[in-house]
Amino acid sequence: MAQIQQPSIPKGTRDFGPSEMVKRNYIFDTIKSVFKLYGFQQIETPATENLSTLMGKYGEEGDKLLFKILNSGDYLSNVDADLLQNKDSLHLTNKISEKGLRYDLTVPFARFVVQHRNDLQFPFKRFQIQPVWRADKPQKGRYREFYQCDVDIIGSNSLMNEVELIQIVNDVYQKFGIRVALKINNRKILAGIAEAIGAPDKMMDITVAIDKLDKIGIDNVNKELADKGLQQSSIEKLQPILSLSGNNTEKLGQISNVLKNSEIGQNGINELRTIFSTIEKLGLSIQIDLDLTLARGLNYYTGAIFEVKALDVQIGSITGGGRYDDLTGIFGMSGVSGVGISFGADRIYDVLDQLDLYPKSATQSTKLLFVTFGEAEQRWCLKNVAAVRAAGIACELYPEPTKMKKQMSYANGRNIPFVAVVGENEVQTSRIALKNMATGEQQMLTIDEVINYLKNN
Amino acid sequence: MAQIQQPSIPKGTRDFGPSEMVKRNYIFDTIKSVFKLYGFQQIETPATENLSTLMGKYGEEGDKLLFKILNSGDYLSNVDADLLQNKDSLHLTNKISEKGLRYDLTVPFARFVVQHRNDLQFPFKRFQIQPVWRADKPQKGRYREFYQCDVDIIGSNSLMNEVELIQIVNDVYQKFGIRVALKINNRKILAGIAEAIGAPDKMMDITVAIDKLDKIGIDNVNKELADKGLQQSSIEKLQPILSLSGNNTEKLGQISNVLKNSEIGQNGINELRTIFSTIEKLGLSIQIDLDLTLARGLNYYTGAIFEVKALDVQIGSITGGGRYDDLTGIFGMSGVSGVGISFGADRIYDVLDQLDLYPKSATQSTKLLFVTFGEAEQRWCLKNVAAVRAAGIACELYPEPTKMKKQMSYANGRNIPFVAVVGENEVQTSRIALKNMATGEQQMLTIDEVINYLKNN
Repeated sequence: MAQIQQPSIPKGTRDFGPSEMVKRNYIFDTIKSVFKLYGFQQIETPATENLSTLMGKYGEEGDKLLFKILNSGDYLSNVDADLLQNKDSLHLTNKISEKGLRYDLTVPFARFVVQHRNDLQFPFKRFQIQPVWRADKPQKGRYREFYQCDVDIIGSNSLMNEVELIQIVNDVYQKFGIRVALKINNRKILAGIAEAIGAPDKMMDITVAIDKLDKIGIDNVNKELADKGLQQSSIEKLQPILSLSGNNTEKLGQISNVLKNSEIGQNGINELRTIFSTIEKLGLSIQIDLDLTLARGLNYYTGAIFEVKALDVQIGSITGGGRYDDLTGIFGMSGVSGVGISFGADRIYDVLDQLDLYPKSATQSTKLLFVTFGEAEQRWCLKNVAAVRAAGIACELYPEPTKMKKQMSYANGRNIPFVAVVGENEVQTSRIALKNMATGEQQMLTIDEVINYLKNN
Repeated sequence: MAQIQQPSIPKGTRDFGPSEMVKRNYIFDTIKSVFKLYGFQQIETPATENLSTLMGKYGEEGDKLLFKILNSGDYLSNVDADLLQNKDSLHLTNKISEKGLRYDLTVPFARFVVQHRNDLQFPFKRFQIQPVWRADKPQKGRYREFYQCDVDIIGSNSLMNEVELIQIVNDVYQKFGIRVALKINNRKILAGIAEAIGAPDKMMDITVAIDKLDKIGIDNVNKELADKGLQQSSIEKLQPILSLSGNNTEKLGQISNVLKNSEIGQNGINELRTIFSTIEKLGLSIQIDLDLTLARGLNYYTGAIFEVKALDVQIGSITGGGRYDDLTGIFGMSGVSGVGISFGADRIYDVLDQLDLYPKSATQSTKLLFVTFGEAEQRWCLKNVAAVRAAGIACELYPEPTKMKKQMSYANGRNIPFVAVVGENEVQTSRIALKNMATGEQQMLTIDEVINYLKNN
């Protein structure tokens, strides 16, 4: 006999069983319903992209994390013998692989916009919910295949778009019942800071260092800045920025003071002021905090930067994004500004789980199971089962008239709340014994009464 | 300046833009709603599977059509130099690739069932809607990435499951408004035929030949059978089977006559009789035809075989499936019978398109667009826009108070049926000019009146 292998899946990937799927669908459906109310339109792009589209877009490290697909057929036939002899994996890859799995939804979106520019209405408001793949080292909470859930407006400079994204964050988490804080920053302020302290070429270093403030503390940040070649005078000028206090408006005032001679800095401050004053009038319930330490890793943001954290669960950012001024430039369509955010479905899943916030209706599937004592009863059931379904109630007939205990245990295992027991007596009287599985209560009802009862319970 | 490449996607793949996505979502949502009413539970499996799971499951040709993923890192380091020197693509593949993209949903489902057997309730009723990938030569209607939409019951021998799948087909196409015929056959009858004509080892050849009856005609089928080594006497015995007439019951009678001494054949006939008589009592609108020429390519079916064709559009099968007795055996869990069908979303899309059957509600997105003359008006609009959304109506605010013509052309391009025009006058009087884009009609309404009007129009 051939050895039979225990089946498994690639590391870093997951199966989603029925109970996980209903929860995941609840998350995606909720987010989608909000996106649609705001007029965003869904698109989907293929899982595979040409490597020429993907390579060089995520830095050197990102290129390594791309899953590459082996060309079909005799892929070695035209490969230079030297490459093979030298076992030069790095350079061989280009010769034997032309496609890769998408790494995020942002680059495919940029590619999509450029490719279909003539068919799209701008500003183009799109959302996209699809998996992405990264050959990262798998660990708790980090997967090699995971969903991203992106919403972007491209082709408009208006700050109304930033406001709209904040409204969407507010609405989504209100629907979930998750209390969140939205942190906001502006890349122009970061640039202004670099300019104002006399180190305009050091913006990235300053940004990276500020980003670590929470983790390593102010002394280490200052040390890192010095290591990066920042003058002591510049580091001193930076200190008020690292210890802002008060509410958002007060903080903006203190920053404005430091940046009084920086045009780009003042632009950033004005953008945030407009956003804050507009949001204020909308009376959103979400907490919004100006946070200069918010820089995010991605270096393509040019204006607003967002990050959302759950207030009642210790977990990283559950939503983030920002404005980018030239996303499509890499594909030859320049001068198009966009702004977008991405919802982290996996983390939202964990937050809802930990806070036990899934609505019962979202996790229930079949409401009624018909169980029978024989084939004649089964046949009698069929029309009744169909009637229950026609009333919009999810209903099953246990397919085999086997031992009652087995049928009941199926109902229990599936968390089906009601069971219709049908034996000879039921068939003769055209009455069904409806059993409430939680209470054990049982009542004899006509099929119409069963449907009415289930609609109200 | 660097040459900028025109962006493109891998051949055989597709982008789905907004208008395609609403139609696709309508298809998937409709099918899912029926699956759920019948108590089927959704699962998802990862896009990538271990090649050990996939290889050898689809025949030699299938192995070649699997997309294989290059191992990460220095994948050549441990490869035998000979393989490289000989440019032996075929044998190198196993050394440099461990994972592949799934080819269908059936093998991953079997793997899933075996891997999670202890967490599942049997009979396990699952559905799965996910893309699959095949390195096929792309052509019209054949893609390298496409969705499958599978529904299966595993762990039950009852013919009630076959009946249920037929009900599902009936309900799904009734919801779509597509008139279809369901062809049904039974693999046991095919085996019985081979047995009855004295060629039990030739079942596959007979089946393949019968499958071609529609395409090549009876003479060529007989010729092919002779070429395959079938005795002339066997071919003669087969003729009544190739020219059945009458309704399903009459046809079953004629077949039964030929198969009177074949136990397996009689089993198949009895199964179909049970299915027909049960379905009859349900009064389904779907046309059901016994069709012995229906054999389908896949050779794992052991009982019922289904295929669905649209009556009003010339297109191949839009749904198909059957019963398989040992799907999970390949992963070490034997004796588990299942039955399932798969809906072909791409072809259903084409049928709905050609028959113009998409409901208007399913293809509409944003219902109302606010257009403004200035930033003050924009800010005034925000609360009104929010009120419309709070009423469940998809609504947008054009993000820039640019030329009216541009804003209106956006509404037209997006097929937004109503526009709210807001200028100084509207702000002062707290009335909104609501314009019907189809008729040009315009009326001055309060925001509450706008909401009421849109709810009823």
